[in-house]
Amino acid sequence: MGQLFTVVEGGGVTTPKGFKAAGLHCGLKKTNRYDLGAIVCEVPAAAAGVYTTNQFQAAPLKVTRESLGRDGKLQAMVVNSGNANACTGKQGEADAYEMRSAAAAAFGVEEHHVGVTSTGVIGEPLPMEKVRRGLAGLPERLKADGSEDFCQAILTTDLVQKMTCVSVQVGGQTVYIAGAAKGSGMIHPNMATMLGFMTTDAKISTANLQALLSKVTDETFNMITVDGDTSTNDMVVVMASGLAGNGDSAELTPEHPDWAAFQAAFQYVGEYLAKAIARDGEGATKLIEVSVTGAASDEAARAIAKTVIGSSLVKSACFGADANWGRIIAAVGRAGQPVQTETVDIRLGDIVTLEQSRPVRFDEEKAAEYLKGDFVHIHVDLHMGPGQATAWGCDLTYEYVRINAAYRT
Amino acid sequence: MGQLFTVVEGGGVTTPKGFKAAGLHCGLKKTNRYDLGAIVCEVPAAAAGVYTTNQFQAAPLKVTRESLGRDGKLQAMVVNSGNANACTGKQGEADAYEMRSAAAAAFGVEEHHVGVTSTGVIGEPLPMEKVRRGLAGLPERLKADGSEDFCQAILTTDLVQKMTCVSVQVGGQTVYIAGAAKGSGMIHPNMATMLGFMTTDAKISTANLQALLSKVTDETFNMITVDGDTSTNDMVVVMASGLAGNGDSAELTPEHPDWAAFQAAFQYVGEYLAKAIARDGEGATKLIEVSVTGAASDEAARAIAKTVIGSSLVKSACFGADANWGRIIAAVGRAGQPVQTETVDIRLGDIVTLEQSRPVRFDEEKAAEYLKGDFVHIHVDLHMGPGQATAWGCDLTYEYVRINAAYRT
Repeated sequence: MGQLFTVVEGGGVTTPKGFKAAGLHCGLKKTNRYDLGAIVCEVPAAAAGVYTTNQFQAAPLKVTRESLGRDGKLQAMVVNSGNANACTGKQGEADAYEMRSAAAAAFGVEEHHVGVTSTGVIGEPLPMEKVRRGLAGLPERLKADGSEDFCQAILTTDLVQKMTCVSVQVGGQTVYIAGAAKGSGMIHPNMATMLGFMTTDAKISTANLQALLSKVTDETFNMITVDGDTSTNDMVVVMASGLAGNGDSAELTPEHPDWAAFQAAFQYVGEYLAKAIARDGEGATKLIEVSVTGAASDEAARAIAKTVIGSSLVKSACFGADANWGRIIAAVGRAGQPVQTETVDIRLGDIVTLEQSRPVRFDEEKAAEYLKGDFVHIHVDLHMGPGQATAWGCDLTYEYVRINAAYRT
Repeated sequence: MGQLFTVVEGGGVTTPKGFKAAGLHCGLKKTNRYDLGAIVCEVPAAAAGVYTTNQFQAAPLKVTRESLGRDGKLQAMVVNSGNANACTGKQGEADAYEMRSAAAAAFGVEEHHVGVTSTGVIGEPLPMEKVRRGLAGLPERLKADGSEDFCQAILTTDLVQKMTCVSVQVGGQTVYIAGAAKGSGMIHPNMATMLGFMTTDAKISTANLQALLSKVTDETFNMITVDGDTSTNDMVVVMASGLAGNGDSAELTPEHPDWAAFQAAFQYVGEYLAKAIARDGEGATKLIEVSVTGAASDEAARAIAKTVIGSSLVKSACFGADANWGRIIAAVGRAGQPVQTETVDIRLGDIVTLEQSRPVRFDEEKAAEYLKGDFVHIHVDLHMGPGQATAWGCDLTYEYVRINAAYRT
């Protein structure tokens, strides 16, 4: 089977047909970096969202969920950075609703076709006069090549912008899928949260889009951890304009012959963004990938992979380039999932350190050399079933402590 | 109600009647610090144990469990530090059994009255010739004031020894309860594990002792976290000689009029040792105590308290003396327990930072001053039920990263 899709170099959220994007500085960030952005579609787009499991959900999530609940479509997503509008009570809710109505007026779209999201400090009221002025200025900034402006507007402590785009053939027509994301700590209330925005010009129903987004999120965004914390504002939203081939293409359903290719492309975008967030984790010097195979089930594999990637001791050892497999097996053993204690293999890259639960003599120097790189692959094979999963994270460094010990001011 | 028990200054595991202890250097640690120790009782003592939930349990745990399973009594506990005898396969099991039989021979007690435990490097075979020689030398080192020798023998990366003793009146007679513990990271396979050893001269059945130990462990040792990792070797063991008042005192049962006092004293010893471990956490500069009240149940309170104390972001903020309550409420919200999102109070010491889920203006300077101390109390009141719990931990520091990034060699 050849490549099912193609990466579009330089592509972004405005590459799929029908989308424009914008970014500007309205005054929420202290420096003059962009802090307000929008993605706007020519037509109401089939849309789907997934939200944080944190019980203290920020006000914007409630508003976006309400918009999506109306007819499953969005025409504009607006986002501000610098203030999370979380733990802000009734005023915060009123502010999120006002952000929605002001955006609807500015872009000339239905109120219930607008989603809003915020990221930044918790517990501070949104400075609404700045937001209002910013929203009024957004329409004239909308550009067909506005992907980067939008990406800049959603960053907080992120060091790099995160976007990607792929194309895939559906019924002989080129369909694009793109995404942008932000996130550096899973949560750091100074400047917080993981956000993902995906666009596509595929023609697909809200229900199928939601099912696909949920599945892909479980295998990508939900498989990364920087520090085990979950933000009050996490959200991933996808909008599908249906404008590929001017909209005369057949609707994409799981029965469509090109569904597998579309799904693979969609998954690629999610995984690309998720890994970009993990690699850009606060203070990180490397991306760590943990693959678990041979588990009792995929769920068990997921839980084990996340326990290993979340272990402070494993993360510290990777920072120190120490091939400390004892910490890995200890994490496997406390994940609360079935394991056979006599059949575990552990590899670091190509280096076998444990085989059938017995230590293997390996070249410590070669292992240290491998662990010093900017990508570390940990493979745990449990040899007990068909379950598998992959999780991503980063090392735990002095810099992480420095960033998170700093005063909020 | 007055004080139910009295702290015995300078008391240790040999203060309760019938116990002696010893420590010596047999060569498992590279420096000449003690690395082998024992507590021995004049008579077979009613005994109980709790063990790690990690599925990769080290060989010594299996052997100790087997001894206790025979007739619920132990007369000697031997422990080595410097090597965990974990992930060592069949040879490791054979070595643990040999440690038991050699100790039984040395002390002249029944094999099934000996418990063994190990802490140190994972995956290395125990150097048995050193252990054998060491065990043979232990009997002549046994002392009625050997508590400190024993304490030294169980330490690994610990900076301080951890022991305490209290006395309590039972039926007009003085009963002693004492304990010693080690632990610095929940696990750090270089030099690993949390171990607790308690002794008492109370007359109590194995069944009542086990029930009490399990209850107290849940509220003390199981409520601390340094880094969220769980060792393969964690164990807490208690031995009750029954020799208080020369053994003619009535047996302690939950129906005994002094049971409440005994239980409170027992709990004090467990909590003292647990807090000592948390305070001595790797790289820690302070002890953090998290109290949760007003939760739906005690179980919910426990889960929430442990999530807050385990948050890398909360720990980093405490290190940085940053009154970042947003991280605390975010941790409360992701603990997977019921909360009312509108009724949460958060206090740092006496400083109210959140009331009925609304931010309270507080003196940032005063808060920073408080957080700079070596003890930080975080109080979360959910105002929804009778559940409460307390958890202990420490801050996350540069030093933690340094210790755990270091090479094993």
